[in-house]
Amino acid sequence: MITLTTDFGLKDPYVAEMKGAILTINPKATIVDVSHGVDRFSVRMGAFLLASAAPYFPEGTVHVAVVDPGVGTERRAIVVQTKRGYFVGPDNGVLMLAAQAEGIKHVYQLTNPKFMLPQVSSTFHGRDIFAPAAAYLDKGTAAKEFGPEITGATAPKFAAVERKGDVLIGEVLHVDGFGNVITNINQKEISQTKDAKINLHHVTLQLPLAKTYAQAKPKEPLALVGSHGFLELALNQGSFAEKYRVNAGDKIETVLA
Amino acid sequence: MITLTTDFGLKDPYVAEMKGAILTINPKATIVDVSHGVDRFSVRMGAFLLASAAPYFPEGTVHVAVVDPGVGTERRAIVVQTKRGYFVGPDNGVLMLAAQAEGIKHVYQLTNPKFMLPQVSSTFHGRDIFAPAAAYLDKGTAAKEFGPEITGATAPKFAAVERKGDVLIGEVLHVDGFGNVITNINQKEISQTKDAKINLHHVTLQLPLAKTYAQAKPKEPLALVGSHGFLELALNQGSFAEKYRVNAGDKIETVLA
Amino acid sequence: MITLTTDFGLKDPYVAEMKGAILTINPKATIVDVSHGVDRFSVRMGAFLLASAAPYFPEGTVHVAVVDPGVGTERRAIVVQTKRGYFVGPDNGVLMLAAQAEGIKHVYQLTNPKFMLPQVSSTFHGRDIFAPAAAYLDKGTAAKEFGPEITGATAPKFAAVERKGDVLIGEVLHVDGFGNVITNINQKEISQTKDAKINLHHVTLQLPLAKTYAQAKPKEPLALVGSHGFLELALNQGSFAEKYRVNAGDKIETVLA
Repeated sequence: MITLTTDFGLKDPYVAEMKGAILTINPKATIVDVSHGVDRFSVRMGAFLLASAAPYFPEGTVHVAVVDPGVGTERRAIVVQTKRGYFVGPDNGVLMLAAQAEGIKHVYQLTNPKFMLPQVSSTFHGRDIFAPAAAYLDKGTAAKEFGPEITGATAPKFAAVERKGDVLIGEVLHVDGFGNVITNINQKEISQTKDAKINLHHVTLQLPLAKTYAQAKPKEPLALVGSHGFLELALNQGSFAEKYRVNAGDKIETVLA
Repeated sequence: MITLTTDFGLKDPYVAEMKGAILTINPKATIVDVSHGVDRFSVRMGAFLLASAAPYFPEGTVHVAVVDPGVGTERRAIVVQTKRGYFVGPDNGVLMLAAQAEGIKHVYQLTNPKFMLPQVSSTFHGRDIFAPAAAYLDKGTAAKEFGPEITGATAPKFAAVERKGDVLIGEVLHVDGFGNVITNINQKEISQTKDAKINLHHVTLQLPLAKTYAQAKPKEPLALVGSHGFLELALNQGSFAEKYRVNAGDKIETVLA
Repeated sequence: MITLTTDFGLKDPYVAEMKGAILTINPKATIVDVSHGVDRFSVRMGAFLLASAAPYFPEGTVHVAVVDPGVGTERRAIVVQTKRGYFVGPDNGVLMLAAQAEGIKHVYQLTNPKFMLPQVSSTFHGRDIFAPAAAYLDKGTAAKEFGPEITGATAPKFAAVERKGDVLIGEVLHVDGFGNVITNINQKEISQTKDAKINLHHVTLQLPLAKTYAQAKPKEPLALVGSHGFLELALNQGSFAEKYRVNAGDKIETVLA
């Protein structure tokens, strides 16, 4: 099984070209789209979406992520082998939030032209390098066949939360289509908290830590631990992000009660 | 075979998480997207899209629909067994337009934790309850294994057309991406009509009842029975909805000739 | 294997209805979306997207394209058999850019009702005629079974580039989601050029002919031969189309150095 996460959108033929490349090598592959709506060049958003979805896929799944502003430069192409599966893409951090959560075993650089398309363009490694590598991995080729083992793969900086006394300083990983604001503060860090006092850039909110959206009145704000295990800010049947003008990347402070 | 209809959009990882949950249980499932572009919380639109698509799928197909503003509240989760297949989702009407058209045999409440993910969140039953149920149904689990048979499932109110003398009072079920306006007035009710006199909120139109868009001049309006068997208002190569400012849910009167 | 290219969008149930029709006839078909985001009625864009993606699919693939402003009129429905595979859709040029590139062997008119849905609507041949034909082709039915062989299939006019002395006069085939501008001027025609002097409607640019986006500074323009073999104009990490206000269909002149 192979998943795809990109910032290519669905209007253009790019995603289909990747799927064609995979299916030419491996006609029986099952391919699932995670998202092709990653904001252009947003490595953070790609990393978050992949890390959210990956745990729900079977062991042995090959995850491809292509958010790749450095395509055609010296940045490396890599395969990460974890305890549960494989991650294929550029070495810019987009794979690592998901891969770290699974436990990394090996990182290999993709250098063996035997597992690339015959003509490799300078602009579209998703199709010419990453898709073929995924097709061969899914077909049973060992990860070490793709190139030399390497160290020092780029880590995702946005994953870390800072703690100053009773204050957790994190950031907004993602604003979803419902306007829910997903932070990088996880369940463990706030497990003893009943209410969440949240400092946004321009306002402080005292929010009940709820179990479900419907515990707040319609259009009223609440905090909860979302389905991905992260602290999430939401309105019941409305958009928190719109009401409080929050964007991905914004700093967010949580005061522990 | 399993179909999915949701209001989750395609940017977020939610649809992929549902697919991962299905494929972990049932790796050979064929999954087809009906739409993930249902307007947020629009049970009417979800019901219409599913009812449009379902007749074209093979017998035995399992249809999942998640438009679920009441997630985490007391609303029930159900499996509807019809003469042709299965419908899985919240008990809020979203399944019933399609299910009624196929002939309902049984409705079961989804209560058996054996067929849910090990951890059920309060916010995402699509992934934790509905997707696993569909995966097991598609794999051969009998519908009655999921929980007790129930009665009184929520019916879709928007399905009914009122008749006053020669006037049919219906409403707009859906405005499609071409700007075509699909009403809930069906073929039988207007079978003896040649022209359609239509009262919209602010204008009365006398429209030819055509067979195809091209029977009207470019940008001119027409009425026809669309491919779903409902009365549809359209412009040839233009948007009726934009020209006449029509939205889903608007009342619409048809005067029978 | 079957691919789909349409202007139906992903909100409406139309694409799912086509897939249901295919899977009812041929439950084991692998279906891949090329794009459903073709601009409404833009035969040029549909033709370009299909021609971009088709070369990456295996031999024997059946490609369906439905951009069909003339549905319900006298325009013919066709199957094109090439040296590599099959193309199914309306006879308006949308199939031919891709089909010509593969080498056309035969063109058949789709007339045999045995390979259509039992009820053929006047408005949705994608579901009622093209999808079933693709399902049967993929299942092994010979192309000649579908109807009489014909000649004079509609050619895509936008495929031709004019040459006046040192000037190539082409046009913009497509503006992609990154704002890259893809012209119909191909690699061979500019093979001896090092710099590209480009006349747009309102400005003349002298651009380096680069290998990759990153050879230009961020937000600076460049020309390159894109992954489809056509001359492409781009900004590094920005939108050329937005900066220089370029749209699909615009004339573009290239002065050979």
